[in-house]
Amino acid sequence: MSEPTPESRAGAASTSSTPSSPATVSAVVGVVAYSRTVACTRYAKDADKAPTMAARVSLMRMSAAAVAGYDRVAEAAAAQGVDAAVQTQRFVGSLGDFDERLRPADWPERMVKTYLAFGLLIDFCMALADGLPEPLRGSLLDELADEHLGALASRELVPAIDADDQLAARLGLWGRRVVGEEMGLLVRMLGQHPELASGAASAEVLHQVLSQGAVNRMQGLGLRG
Amino acid sequence: MSEPTPESRAGAASTSSTPSSPATVSAVVGVVAYSRTVACTRYAKDADKAPTMAARVSLMRMSAAAVAGYDRVAEAAAAQGVDAAVQTQRFVGSLGDFDERLRPADWPERMVKTYLAFGLLIDFCMALADGLPEPLRGSLLDELADEHLGALASRELVPAIDADDQLAARLGLWGRRVVGEEMGLLVRMLGQHPELASGAASAEVLHQVLSQGAVNRMQGLGLRG
Repeated sequence: MSEPTPESRAGAASTSSTPSSPATVSAVVGVVAYSRTVACTRYAKDADKAPTMAARVSLMRMSAAAVAGYDRVAEAAAAQGVDAAVQTQRFVGSLGDFDERLRPADWPERMVKTYLAFGLLIDFCMALADGLPEPLRGSLLDELADEHLGALASRELVPAIDADDQLAARLGLWGRRVVGEEMGLLVRMLGQHPELASGAASAEVLHQVLSQGAVNRMQGLGLRG
Repeated sequence: MSEPTPESRAGAASTSSTPSSPATVSAVVGVVAYSRTVACTRYAKDADKAPTMAARVSLMRMSAAAVAGYDRVAEAAAAQGVDAAVQTQRFVGSLGDFDERLRPADWPERMVKTYLAFGLLIDFCMALADGLPEPLRGSLLDELADEHLGALASRELVPAIDADDQLAARLGLWGRRVVGEEMGLLVRMLGQHPELASGAASAEVLHQVLSQGAVNRMQGLGLRG
């Protein structure tokens, strides 16, 4: 994975003066709104497997917040004449059989999977949204930034990883698999929807954002990327 | 399944003058709150498989509403000195491997499964809640009654069932399997937590409520019970 560079930060894209095409705006709305629907399901499924009521309730609340987020994204998009439901539909299924290929063996693996896969999806969405014109850019970035995922993952994972070298090694391997699969999916999504990448949010920048995000997230958990 | 009788209606239990024991109150709070957490996950999983954005968004909203419902149940319980999280914990996992044993082959089977299994769980919870003292009784019944499941199931299923005799026959068989499994689970839950059934919400009344609910729900979809 690449070293951090200033250009790999999503924020750099906002300096772009290339206006986004309507096709790009619509596609980015679709991916961001789709990410909210997927978050609803992912967090709710994780809630069902949570070992404590505290984690269960946290994840349920995150799931419900993703639904409210979908509605806010749809509202912001509608104000720009974009139908979020129509755009979301195009991306339904584009995360494919990710879940079938990556079945967590236990709760720590499940949390690592959700944290890394969703973290990367959020990084990806933020880099895309950052290239859009205001006020849509700000609305989508606000929505994506409002994530309790990092705090939950830290709470559920960091003490256990710090206390158990074997767990840390196993989760490090697992995390690399998750990152590899998720990056493959997102790169494929870019290939199938080339209109997503435009201006400063080029395919190359997106790659860098994802690579750097993966490194940061693995390290944040105390795992070796 | 039994013929409808006035006594099989959950409402009849409210005439009970036997006060509920604290153990019953706590256990019923646990089952009702647990049903909200399970609803969050079930609806969110169904949303992910929905064939249309309209159904996807409806189910996401139902999932989020179940989360808000959990919070309201917890608040009403706290006002009576009952910790809903602690009580819920006791029931986590009590629906067991229901999902593994009943894998829907397609969207209509998925909707029939959710509608019948959750419908029966709601009937069960309402009959239990109906035996509690006010104001908890009213709070829990209001929460359980606020279900959009019936409307969604009608919209998604009834036109298809009316138009296709083969589908109706297949879903009729499937529905009977779902009802059988779910009733078995709820009866087992009663056996494991005998404090749930008390006063007018006796095990016998609960059986009748479930049987009648199953008949009504199958018939409501146009399926032969």
